[in-house]
Amino acid sequence: MTDALFSGLLRLPTGPVDLSAIDTHAKPGFDGNKDDGERALADLGPELADMQEQLFAERTTGSTRRVLLVLQGMDTSGKGGVIRHAIGLVDPQGVRITSFKAPTEEELSHDFLWRIERAVPGPGYVGVFDRSHYEDVLIGRVRDIADEAEIERRYDAINAFEQGLVDDGVIIIKVMLHISADEQRERLLARLDDPTKHWKFNPGDIDERMLWSDYQEAYRIALERTNTPAAPWYVVPSDRKWYRNLAVAQLLREALLGLDLAWPEADFDVEEQRRRLTDETPIDAGTDSGTDKATDRTGPA
Amino acid sequence: MTDALFSGLLRLPTGPVDLSAIDTHAKPGFDGNKDDGERALADLGPELADMQEQLFAERTTGSTRRVLLVLQGMDTSGKGGVIRHAIGLVDPQGVRITSFKAPTEEELSHDFLWRIERAVPGPGYVGVFDRSHYEDVLIGRVRDIADEAEIERRYDAINAFEQGLVDDGVIIIKVMLHISADEQRERLLARLDDPTKHWKFNPGDIDERMLWSDYQEAYRIALERTNTPAAPWYVVPSDRKWYRNLAVAQLLREALLGLDLAWPEADFDVEEQRRRLTDETPIDAGTDSGTDKATDRTGPA
Repeated sequence: MTDALFSGLLRLPTGPVDLSAIDTHAKPGFDGNKDDGERALADLGPELADMQEQLFAERTTGSTRRVLLVLQGMDTSGKGGVIRHAIGLVDPQGVRITSFKAPTEEELSHDFLWRIERAVPGPGYVGVFDRSHYEDVLIGRVRDIADEAEIERRYDAINAFEQGLVDDGVIIIKVMLHISADEQRERLLARLDDPTKHWKFNPGDIDERMLWSDYQEAYRIALERTNTPAAPWYVVPSDRKWYRNLAVAQLLREALLGLDLAWPEADFDVEEQRRRLTDETPIDAGTDSGTDKATDRTGPA
Repeated sequence: MTDALFSGLLRLPTGPVDLSAIDTHAKPGFDGNKDDGERALADLGPELADMQEQLFAERTTGSTRRVLLVLQGMDTSGKGGVIRHAIGLVDPQGVRITSFKAPTEEELSHDFLWRIERAVPGPGYVGVFDRSHYEDVLIGRVRDIADEAEIERRYDAINAFEQGLVDDGVIIIKVMLHISADEQRERLLARLDDPTKHWKFNPGDIDERMLWSDYQEAYRIALERTNTPAAPWYVVPSDRKWYRNLAVAQLLREALLGLDLAWPEADFDVEEQRRRLTDETPIDAGTDSGTDKATDRTGPA
């Protein structure tokens, strides 16, 4: 039970959604303060890294299981911070991060899911989407980029797409990083105050901010329409950065725990291989071994 | 001078190469023991992460600069360990890792550099190749996959390719992780002794090991032929894992230092943007703002 604490607390109930009723400053499931939270996050590192490696190892058995973490949230809500602090705890070799920007000409010439499908992580990986197909029903709606009928079509297309992923072994963790408008203003002002953060600032961010309530409404509808049993939404209160990082790490941990991972068994005779190494002719690194060469390409290990 | 200590010490001199003369157990440039080395590596973290972020930020100014770390070495030499422990110190968002396995049918239908070109990191990124185009002149030679004339052609093609990358803003750090045959045997035996490591073991690894001196000779020739001023080789003694990780992190650090990175200047009026935030009409998160909508797609920030 304890193992599914965060996913239980943060999971968005199905049915009508009221984001304004979810306290952006809360810290469900955690009693401690910032120091406690940062320590708790660091303490998760070894367990997360082990499970991620087990998932990666499982590939070698032909398993298609993988994890896809979808991060959505308003500007400054901390998608990048979560990747750095939570995803940064595991081996980067097993992680595939895709950051979705405004679509290119080529991407626009295809269905909105085309570029998304190409970024789905392969078996064994933890994939992370920094923004996602949800932009196509968020900015798509707020900025009138698509008409109402197309937006409607997209909700259903997203649900069908995600169901297909789940059927194919993908565990989807959809997270909305939920901040208040006041917190966003503070964070934007902090970026302006710090010259090392100016590169992250774009005057267009304030234009988007002026549409705050339109975005909240777009989120409300999107979450309501795509909060499926196969791929539910989690709303993470994110005014506290340390809680946000810890909560997403916990959601990842609980998803990995749910996979009941184990180290794959050897598909070779361990003793036989050990004998090959202990009984071998000494290797002379200085001269050509003269060993017969095989002609089939085995490729790098 | 101190800043380029490791690259100076580990850089392979041009001219004839004798790998057997390079001590795989040495620790050039570092006086301490394992504990000191692990602490020194951890201490590099913040500086490395800062410079990586500056490189990433520089993209926004139109710069095409990026780093490509090419990792080569015999099985168990620690390519994965370097990625986990050294590259793991920086934000995974700015890193692009490509692990090259035996080529697919599609890859084999193209020139050997085709799949390599597609994996070159974009501006601002730190790319890492776990194995690389060098396999095509290593296993390619040892296993007679390509004939002598083709192998000869490839050395020149590699040099031209790398020169092109350098001209295009790529800093290439080519590293051979140099271990002894004895050390490899110990590491393979350790994998057999540890059930959590069996998934990393492949009986084919021992077949490759039996060709040890052929591989050393193939490395010798490849390093000699491709040790260019634009993209020199570094040979890192790797029998000590902690030294290997520290040395590669230092090579990366020295390369980043050489870029003389700085935070990009704001390309907007900071005061004006601050005023927009401090003078704004209060945002009512509960109702529609009714703000005029633009019709052009600005896209996610």
